[in-house]
Amino acid sequence: MSGKSASFPFHIESYTCDFTEKATLFGICGYILDAASRHAEENGFGYAHILKDKVAWVLSRLSIKMDAYPAFNRTVGIETWVEGVDRFFTRRCFCIRDEDGAVLGYARTIWAAINIETRRPTDIPAWRPDLAEYIMPEKECPIEKFAKIPPVEEVEPSMGYSVRYSDIDINKHMNSIKYIEHIVNVFDLAQFRDKIIRRFDIVYLAEGVFGDKLKLYKRDISENESLIDTRRGEESVCRSRIIWE
Amino acid sequence: MSGKSASFPFHIESYTCDFTEKATLFGICGYILDAASRHAEENGFGYAHILKDKVAWVLSRLSIKMDAYPAFNRTVGIETWVEGVDRFFTRRCFCIRDEDGAVLGYARTIWAAINIETRRPTDIPAWRPDLAEYIMPEKECPIEKFAKIPPVEEVEPSMGYSVRYSDIDINKHMNSIKYIEHIVNVFDLAQFRDKIIRRFDIVYLAEGVFGDKLKLYKRDISENESLIDTRRGEESVCRSRIIWE
Repeated sequence: MSGKSASFPFHIESYTCDFTEKATLFGICGYILDAASRHAEENGFGYAHILKDKVAWVLSRLSIKMDAYPAFNRTVGIETWVEGVDRFFTRRCFCIRDEDGAVLGYARTIWAAINIETRRPTDIPAWRPDLAEYIMPEKECPIEKFAKIPPVEEVEPSMGYSVRYSDIDINKHMNSIKYIEHIVNVFDLAQFRDKIIRRFDIVYLAEGVFGDKLKLYKRDISENESLIDTRRGEESVCRSRIIWE
Repeated sequence: MSGKSASFPFHIESYTCDFTEKATLFGICGYILDAASRHAEENGFGYAHILKDKVAWVLSRLSIKMDAYPAFNRTVGIETWVEGVDRFFTRRCFCIRDEDGAVLGYARTIWAAINIETRRPTDIPAWRPDLAEYIMPEKECPIEKFAKIPPVEEVEPSMGYSVRYSDIDINKHMNSIKYIEHIVNVFDLAQFRDKIIRRFDIVYLAEGVFGDKLKLYKRDISENESLIDTRRGEESVCRSRIIWE
């Protein structure tokens, strides 16, 4: 039992850093999902608990806004809490702090509870009315709500990849974090030297599986903003927006 | 100061696991390099210390033999020590243990000390005679010595990739561990369901950089043994041997 809100420490190892000696965006997002899992686990609604009901949490959306990225060998604390429970989605928030407690960024995630046999969403309040006890609607998460991300059309793909072993997660689908790693890989190395990813949004629309051939379509909205659509044929598997600063 | 031999704990997070809920080979190899860095750092011959002499440690070879892979949410201890110091190479060994102290595997790595301006190897005993004080030649590391890995010729490439942002390490070269991730990705998912990687050997021959287009050439020696040559054009960047069981 860790209570309504809990913080989990993560030590920034070299393999979570890029050439700037800071943790990568997808490294931080990995910590976020890990903190979410641990908090749910400690409070009786983790993957293992809900599997008994043939239900699994599926990440639907993620928004993250970072003021700065933590450096190699430092420790971050990821605080997480449930902001709200709607009929088919829960909203979980995160605050990322450095060792001294200074805020580095915030994130908000949206989760569906999918029946693992029918793959249909579960009516969450009907299934687990007790989750209402965990919500903290009053706790501030100062990151703007997720805005709709349009598809990217009428451009040539910037990059393509096949879904391989290291892309696959415990549920045998494409790992949510690996999509993000591939997405940031469409940018040139110089971009990461000169700027940081200030905000990143992603919506997951379909589940990639081993062997899928995915293509990334990128449209630059302005000098510092791009949309990246990851598609399997005509179908968007996930759509993302990236804002640099 | 951690002494001649030291052990470092690593908690197995979900993002280090594959679909079998065990840590991946390249996840364990990441821990190994991290343990090596920390041990060197604590004893005055880490990256930061030797940079003053314009010298950097460069991984030349790695051999790892695993009896079993640790599961999600467990903790492993990686013990490391220097087995020997030769003129141009040091040999560093590792023992990987589970939470109860049972041995999961062993590894041996070979490192050169490269002058970062001339890129030439440094005569290690002449440069740092004090390293002799750290060697533990008597400590057992029961993994057979590294055997020469021949090039793979006269086959079509199994896979290719461009070196992108997430492949690049702090030194702006291709990350040693990322080569391993791409190498294991030549295998089908079913292989990882039915077998484990019992032994893996890799020799690094050249430094990949951003934008390199690499191709993987695989030759099956037997049902459970393959050679995989990662090439940039005609040049081998690294060669590896993988043994399944």
